[in-house]
Amino acid sequence: MRNIQILIEYDGTDYCGWQKQVNGISVQEKILNSLGKVMRDTQKITGSGRTDAGVHAWEQSANFYTESKIPIDRVPLALNTHLPPDIRVIGAAERPEEFHSRYHAVGKIYEYKVLTGQFPSALNRNRYWHVKDSLDMGEIEKAMAFFKGTHDFTAFSSAKSKVEDKVRTVNRLETEIVGRELIFQIEGDGFLYNMVRIIIGTLIEVGRGKLKAEVIPKILVAKNRSLAGPTAPPQGLYLKKVLY
Amino acid sequence: MRNIQILIEYDGTDYCGWQKQVNGISVQEKILNSLGKVMRDTQKITGSGRTDAGVHAWEQSANFYTESKIPIDRVPLALNTHLPPDIRVIGAAERPEEFHSRYHAVGKIYEYKVLTGQFPSALNRNRYWHVKDSLDMGEIEKAMAFFKGTHDFTAFSSAKSKVEDKVRTVNRLETEIVGRELIFQIEGDGFLYNMVRIIIGTLIEVGRGKLKAEVIPKILVAKNRSLAGPTAPPQGLYLKKVLY
Repeated sequence: MRNIQILIEYDGTDYCGWQKQVNGISVQEKILNSLGKVMRDTQKITGSGRTDAGVHAWEQSANFYTESKIPIDRVPLALNTHLPPDIRVIGAAERPEEFHSRYHAVGKIYEYKVLTGQFPSALNRNRYWHVKDSLDMGEIEKAMAFFKGTHDFTAFSSAKSKVEDKVRTVNRLETEIVGRELIFQIEGDGFLYNMVRIIIGTLIEVGRGKLKAEVIPKILVAKNRSLAGPTAPPQGLYLKKVLY
Repeated sequence: MRNIQILIEYDGTDYCGWQKQVNGISVQEKILNSLGKVMRDTQKITGSGRTDAGVHAWEQSANFYTESKIPIDRVPLALNTHLPPDIRVIGAAERPEEFHSRYHAVGKIYEYKVLTGQFPSALNRNRYWHVKDSLDMGEIEKAMAFFKGTHDFTAFSSAKSKVEDKVRTVNRLETEIVGRELIFQIEGDGFLYNMVRIIIGTLIEVGRGKLKAEVIPKILVAKNRSLAGPTAPPQGLYLKKVLY
């Protein structure tokens, strides 16, 4: 049995998220439909993790098993033929039989884009969180430092999260300013449900002066979701890379 | 009578272009609808020029007359309330009564984005021309030099163009490479119908090695559209700025 890993870029705007659901169309479902046409023996695909409705991926990773003899370099093109233009397979590789997209991931990189300035953008309306208020970047950077390292991120995850162990390590958290864009990059060994969006929502509250940078360590220790900032909207979030 | 100039950003994907038409929904029509709600006396808006179906604008310029007493800094927000999210008014200013968006424009800046590499992009599918072939940038730059200056651009305009005088001046033509993106910027005193898209289509043919850079001056002199390259697709083109 061949175990094939594929890399997928998608625009999450019109999907209920990665994961197949009863209500709404998912990215996974669209890929399964395409797999069904290209490799007739494949009814299952495992992603590295979920992304929410409206969240994008520059490079989601997933794997599936097949007996198909299709050459590996033909896989992206063959799958793309049966996919809508807002989902593109951008890579494929043969993996050992035991390779698992989720269990074997050792980390993930997310990107979050904020658009500052008075007016929202027509061209990038589904690509950013538009924040009108002027932001104190010095305070934001001070707050960012507190998230780095290993912490219990209970306060920075959705109450709906069912995972028991909420300790995660953030290896990297950086910002870059390009014109009106404020781009965050965050790399960690794993992320809890809504964790990136709550961290960003909290950083923006700090930038607005509504929360002090110094309280971040206290919020982490208190493990209380209601002390952290709001969940930033989905359309600014991009799964950038899954690390193995 | 107040003469108000507005600046507009739009995503051209779902429109038949700037200009009001019998078939299809235009950007102009959407703005007119909004103007009708905000300033009840306004039934006309003059743009700096047309953009085709699928072509975008970072900053289109237009003006209209009104007796309305609305404060100028309230105009963008008021109009945006009645506009779809893919059209945003991003500026407004009072102008002298004789100001005319088209006649008084002394130049325009356009941007054209090409995406290179094997795979098209899901996230930017309506924002680029995807060109798979490897491109010889040295040859493209050699060809670019021939477009600069004052020429009769008959060969680089649509045969449908009804303008008599086809002499235009290209003041600036530059490229920038950012990752997989190849971005052209072109500034001139005015552009004929499809002129930017035919220049870009020709430059890509040169980059592919299908046309020699040295033939550009001959094509200009021959004034023969069929000797130039194809018209590049609309979704890579952005009206960046109208100069007054």
